[in-house]
Amino acid sequence: MKTICGNTYEHYLDMVKNFHGHLAPGMLIGGFMVDAAVNNLPEGEFFDAVCETRACLPDAIQLLTPCTIGNGWLKILNMGLFALTMFEKFDGEGIRVYVDPPKLEPWPEIKSWFFKLKPKKEQNFELLLKQISDAGADFCSLAKVQMKPEYVDHKRRKGFDICRQCGEAYPWEDGSLCLSCQGQNPYV
Amino acid sequence: MKTICGNTYEHYLDMVKNFHGHLAPGMLIGGFMVDAAVNNLPEGEFFDAVCETRACLPDAIQLLTPCTIGNGWLKILNMGLFALTMFEKFDGEGIRVYVDPPKLEPWPEIKSWFFKLKPKKEQNFELLLKQISDAGADFCSLAKVQMKPEYVDHKRRKGFDICRQCGEAYPWEDGSLCLSCQGQNPYV
Ligand SMILES: [Zn+2]
Ligand SMILES: [Zn+2]
Repeated sequence: MKTICGNTYEHYLDMVKNFHGHLAPGMLIGGFMVDAAVNNLPEGEFFDAVCETRACLPDAIQLLTPCTIGNGWLKILNMGLFALTMFEKFDGEGIRVYVDPPKLEPWPEIKSWFFKLKPKKEQNFELLLKQISDAGADFCSLAKVQMKPEYVDHKRRKGFDICRQCGEAYPWEDGSLCLSCQGQNPYV
Repeated sequence: MKTICGNTYEHYLDMVKNFHGHLAPGMLIGGFMVDAAVNNLPEGEFFDAVCETRACLPDAIQLLTPCTIGNGWLKILNMGLFALTMFEKFDGEGIRVYVDPPKLEPWPEIKSWFFKLKPKKEQNFELLLKQISDAGADFCSLAKVQMKPEYVDHKRRKGFDICRQCGEAYPWEDGSLCLSCQGQNPYV
């Protein structure tokens, strides 16, 4: 029986339901991908993560590694690619795990789900879950990568000012007003 | 004894250590802020979240609400403001919880930490934790907000193509090449 970063598959399913809210196929596939990354790390002790999509995969990383969005060790580049990289924090040497489309051929229900070939109600969810569980990370490939320097540098803590428009504390290097008052606020 | 979304403070500290990796002051303050939001929600059943900083607070939201970055119910606007909003998913009516600087006066160690007035090694961490635990959400304020329409609309699933440069699947509306191949990739 496959394990996912030391968890039984059953236990991982529970972790997914509790954190992500439902058994999303992307979370299950993501679990196997994170497991593949963790089992193929370069030399080192501390590893950050980059996720190339915002959908599902960041949660698999957050559940299975020390990297979260709030502690800054997980960064998300919303490029819509189902891939992740774990890299050594200080030298940037990393391992990228990605879905390799030709390798999806033996897994037609996964291929169909991945490319959104069928409307949701025509998908056979049970068969999809079975193929995901059988495939593990077989339809993924790994590649060694080197992170660009900006991903390896770590910013120092900067100072905070009071925004003269809204009165809240904001990082002074953002300008004379906070970014929210400069127009980025999401409120009407 | 204060509770945080139904958890004892002790239990919340354990949740923080397990998920975030360490007892970050921002996580403890964040817990009280999320609790305040959850206790002051407008009418409704489903709520999304917006976080106005990338530091710590997103993890408090992910631990205490159904909203995560991977399920899309949590969005992060990296504006550097220590504030969050929970809003009704379909009509956008929300409650914003933010740190209100004048209210920090009774809590000098928290004020000092928040504005980074002292270098880390001069901070009295024990006193900081005590003040955070005593203050709860007392130095925060709440405001009703209405989300801009783009935060309330939900995008439909789009189609995927194979990128002719890297061979991976990507959302076709991103262009003739995937965003990674268009230059957004983080690798050397
Ligand atoms: Zn402002
Ligand atoms: Zn590409």
